[in-house]
This record gives sequence, structure tokens and C-alpha cells, in this order.
Amino acid sequence: MVSLNIDVTRQVTMADVETTMIDLLAYDDGVMAQAARHHLGSGGGRARAILALQSAHALKLPFETTRAISAACELLHNASLVHDDLQDGDTVRRGEEAVWKKFGSNTAICLGDLMVSAAYAAIASAPVDRMSEMIARMHKRVSDVIGGQHADLENDCTTIAEYNEVARMKSGPLLGLPVELCLMAANFSDHVSAAMAASDAIAIAYQTTDDISDVERDIEVGGLNFLMVVEGDMTSRTLAARLHAAEYSRAAIEIAKTLPYGSGHGLIALAEKFGPLLAIGEAA
Amino acid sequence: MVSLNIDVTRQVTMADVETTMIDLLAYDDGVMAQAARHHLGSGGGRARAILALQSAHALKLPFETTRAISAACELLHNASLVHDDLQDGDTVRRGEEAVWKKFGSNTAICLGDLMVSAAYAAIASAPVDRMSEMIARMHKRVSDVIGGQHADLENDCTTIAEYNEVARMKSGPLLGLPVELCLMAANFSDHVSAAMAASDAIAIAYQTTDDISDVERDIEVGGLNFLMVVEGDMTSRTLAARLHAAEYSRAAIEIAKTLPYGSGHGLIALAEKFGPLLAIGEAA
Repeated sequence: MVSLNIDVTRQVTMADVETTMIDLLAYDDGVMAQAARHHLGSGGGRARAILALQSAHALKLPFETTRAISAACELLHNASLVHDDLQDGDTVRRGEEAVWKKFGSNTAICLGDLMVSAAYAAIASAPVDRMSEMIARMHKRVSDVIGGQHADLENDCTTIAEYNEVARMKSGPLLGLPVELCLMAANFSDHVSAAMAASDAIAIAYQTTDDISDVERDIEVGGLNFLMVVEGDMTSRTLAARLHAAEYSRAAIEIAKTLPYGSGHGLIALAEKFGPLLAIGEAA
Repeated sequence: MVSLNIDVTRQVTMADVETTMIDLLAYDDGVMAQAARHHLGSGGGRARAILALQSAHALKLPFETTRAISAACELLHNASLVHDDLQDGDTVRRGEEAVWKKFGSNTAICLGDLMVSAAYAAIASAPVDRMSEMIARMHKRVSDVIGGQHADLENDCTTIAEYNEVARMKSGPLLGLPVELCLMAANFSDHVSAAMAASDAIAIAYQTTDDISDVERDIEVGGLNFLMVVEGDMTSRTLAARLHAAEYSRAAIEIAKTLPYGSGHGLIALAEKFGPLLAIGEAA
């Protein structure tokens, strides 16, 4: 009986999340399974799974619910990476060949589709009362992120407000979703909009920080970049980007602090990566 | 009170299904919404929605459940069409430009993704006890159809058995799914495997029939075609195809007859289109 107790109460690990993802994708030993293993096996920070694990732990969600939310969000994110790489023509992902480059465009399209489907299969395995509501939320955030990816591809931002809108839609939805779903599963739906606001602000801070290192490539390919929507020489544009990131990072932290039982802790840790300390440290 | 009764008990119409699909896709007036309206507005037989409506009616499923299953299956099918057209390089769909041709590859990839996601949002709106089980089934059938599309693209069939396997996987999953989900919602899960067997047989009959008219194009592009896996002159290959279709059509009808309360009626009507009468009539 002791072993049963240990099994039931143990925390979800990243290995559990990886196993859940692969089980939902690699139903045979064909090319699709190989492509799934190649993509997921190449690593990645699993930031969305980590956010889910942290929020779920804070809210004391059951094992299966935690695993389901973590795997669902990470599958959606990886679906977007597989399709984005194809759309953007990026040949390398995490030091390995991108799926479309190694297995062809057709396999990349099929694998992304399979990952979106698997994400919903993952969330449906959660023993929760609010399944309909949680799935509706997932679709809303998928719609948002697809709108963001599309706006990014059609990039024609000329103002900071337009830039913020695209940056927010590009990364905010899938950074917020893990926390939002945990809050819903724990009956804290009233706090979902705060989690969304915090993740939107993180998305803007993240994108702006990223733009500083990507500026040369973005100029070349006409990609979305904060430095292209402000004026001045490159030094002052870079400084403006750091200040912009710091401002949104601070806002995200303040909002995430309001989430119940420390369920915004993961968002705060993420926001701190793009925050004032970094801005000062790197500018020094 | 009379008007309330009428509203609650009225049957789901195809217009209800269309509205549900568009509502889940066109959340703003951007390019994605335009692309969704373009694709869905170009028509299509809505065979999967019709199958769902017929089975749901036979099984006396509630309005919301019927609408949810119909919209979910039709969204999955249309997602596959949008992505297949891109993968196959087909420029025309239902007499209109294919989405990728009119709006670009990036929009086509995004729209297909959005449609897969919307399909799960649709099914999640059904007031059923077996939501987890039904979503797991959806993912299984999506996995099957993606495997089929992939096998079709990699076409290297040399035997009738290999051909049947690819044909079955290509169309069977999404033809069977509407009936399978209705059976599950009505607590007839025991009959799901029979619905699957019937739809697999219809898929083979359908694909074989289709191959007769598509043979020239398939030879040109190296596509899957029954006539290419049998021997003899074109007249005897065509006859072999008709007999093959008729055989699987008959099998589908026999299996579909076993489904409870006439819930296989839609499958039977579909199978009859590729059946013995057609084979004799056209061969005459």
C-alpha cells in the first residue's frame, strides 16, 4: 500500500510530461513518429510546461490534471514551432535541423496538425469539472496565437502600439495558457484575466529583448523588430528597447503577484529574465 | 411557452452547423476570417456533417450534442482539405481558388491549424458525460487520417492490400468519426468498432471509384491509384476497380445495418453511391 500512496501523491516531473507528449504523437514507428521524436528530442526550455507545473503545484492540483495541462500547453507550443519554422524558412531549431528541413514540408505540416490535436487529447485526460470551459479557453488562446503568427508574417508595424499588439499576440497566449488553465481547474476563473494580462506583458518584454540580438537578421528579412519602430541611432534604439522590456517586465511582475496562492510565481520568474536588472546589468 | 418548446426540440439544420463553424473561426475581421469564409463559403457536400445529423437523429441525441459533433467532424475534414491542397499543390477547390493559392501558404497553414483547434472547441460544447472518451476518439481518428495523408504523399503502394490500407486511412477516419461520436454520446460505445469497419470499407470503395476518373492525373503526378496496382489493359483495370469498389460497398452496407436504431443509415446511403448498382450501371 505504501507504494500506491507514493505513486498517487508524487509530483509530476518533466519526464512525465515528455512521456505523455510522445505517447500521444508516436502511435506507430512511421515517419511521423520519427519526426515527433526528432523535434521533441532536440530539447527546448519547456517554459510552458514549467509554468504549468509551478502553478499547479501552488494550487495543489491533482497529478493527472497537472500532467494534462503541462503536456497540452507544451504540445501547442511545439506545434507552433514546427509550423513557424516552415513558414519562416528557418532551417535550424535548437541546433538540429528543423522538421521541414529534415523530413520535408509535408511531414512538418502533418506533424504540427497532429500536435494541435494531441494537445486537446492531453487536456481531455484531466479529471476536471470544467472541461468545456478549459477547452474553450485553449481554443481562444490558439486563435490568438495564430492571429499573432499571421500578423508577424504580414509584419507592417510602424508604431510601438502596433508592435506591442503583435508581440503580445505572438507569445502571450501560450505563456498565459498554462497558468490560466491551472486557475480554471482550481476554481479560480476570476483570476484568468490577470494571468492573461501578466503573460501579455511578459510577451512584449521577451520579444523586445529578443529583438536586440536579432536586429540584423530582422532588418534583412523584414521581420518584426522593436528597433525598427523607434527613431534614433542604433545605440539609442537599443536603450529604448531595454527600457521598454523593463517597463513591461515590471508590470507583469506586479500583476502576477496578485494571483492566488503564489500561482503566479512561475510568471514572475520568467518576467525577471527580461526585467530591470538585466537591462541595467547588460547596459553597464 | 409554445415557442420555447419548438426551439428546444427543433432539429439541427446544416445552417446551424455552418454558423457554429464560422463562429469558431472568424473571431475578427482579419485575413484569417476572410480565408475561413472563402473556404467554407465555396460549398462542399458536408458529407460528414450529414452523417452526424443522420446518426444523431436516429439516436435521439440532444440539439447541442448533435450540432457539436456535426461541426467538429466537418471542421476536421475542412482542415484536412486546406492543408492537403497546399501539400498536393492543388490550386482549385470546389471551383474556387484553393486557400493557399488565394491567400498564400502561410495563411493556409494557419487556417488549417485553427480549424483543427476549432473542431475540439466544437465538440467540447456538447453536454455529454463521455467528453474525455470522445475527445480521445477524435484524436485517434485525426492521427489515423494524418497517417493516411502522409502515406498517400509518400505513395509507394504496389499491392491491393497496401492500396486498401492507404485508402482506408485517408478517408475512413473522418467518415466514421461522426457516427462513432454519436454512438459514444448515446452510450453505444460497443458499436464504435462496427462503425469504423463500415467507414473503412466505404473509404476503399470511394477511393477506388474516384481513381477511375483520376487515373490520367494520378499517373502524371505519381498519386495513389487502384488502377496502378492491378495488371492488364486499361479496360480490365477499370473493371477490376469497379468490382473492388462494389465489393467494399456491399461489405460496408452489411456492417452498417448492424448499428443500433438505424444509426448506420447515413453510412448505408453513402456506401450505395459506390456500390454494385453503380458498377453495373456504368459498366453497361
